[in-house]
Amino acid sequence: MAVPQLTETERDEALADLSGWSLREDGLAIERRFKFRDFSEAFGFMTRVALIAESQNHHPEWSNVYNRVEITLTTHDAGGLSQRDVKAAQAIDALLG
Amino acid sequence: MAVPQLTETERDEALADLSGWSLREDGLAIERRFKFRDFSEAFGFMTRVALIAESQNHHPEWSNVYNRVEITLTTHDAGGLSQRDVKAAQAIDALLG
Repeated sequence: MAVPQLTETERDEALADLSGWSLREDGLAIERRFKFRDFSEAFGFMTRVALIAESQNHHPEWSNVYNRVEITLTTHDAGGLSQRDVKAAQAIDALLG
Repeated sequence: MAVPQLTETERDEALADLSGWSLREDGLAIERRFKFRDFSEAFGFMTRVALIAESQNHHPEWSNVYNRVEITLTTHDAGGLSQRDVKAAQAIDALLG
């Protein structure tokens, strides 16, 4: 694999610092749900996440229904979680102030 | 319900005109998958769809993974498909030129 997968210890430490994010059942991804006032606010957030994704060259799997956004982060080149996902989650959380 | 649901005939006629869209298994929504060159192109498309959604006050359920976008249209106030979904699908298709 081109990107090293997090060890279990690294993963647990990262999750302890990322409040709101949880480990997907299979342990290969982290996910978080966001709720906004309306679609405009939700899509504004998505646009900012898109800019982060493009600049980090690391893109989320995500969905939106009106004021709700669900984001899943995983690293295909690592076959699971990597430091890239932690960095992306931190940058996304920083948007929320 | 605030919005009239399409009759079966109306639904079939609308779908015949919307190439690429298919009826969801439960018959209550239409869906279409789009594929782009990369994330930048996919998110550019999503931004244009968001502007349509906001101006029509009718919002999709949708997801994105890198260069792929999946859009589902349904009308909660109709308990299924309405003319609003047809109008939204037509406007989205018009983006593709």
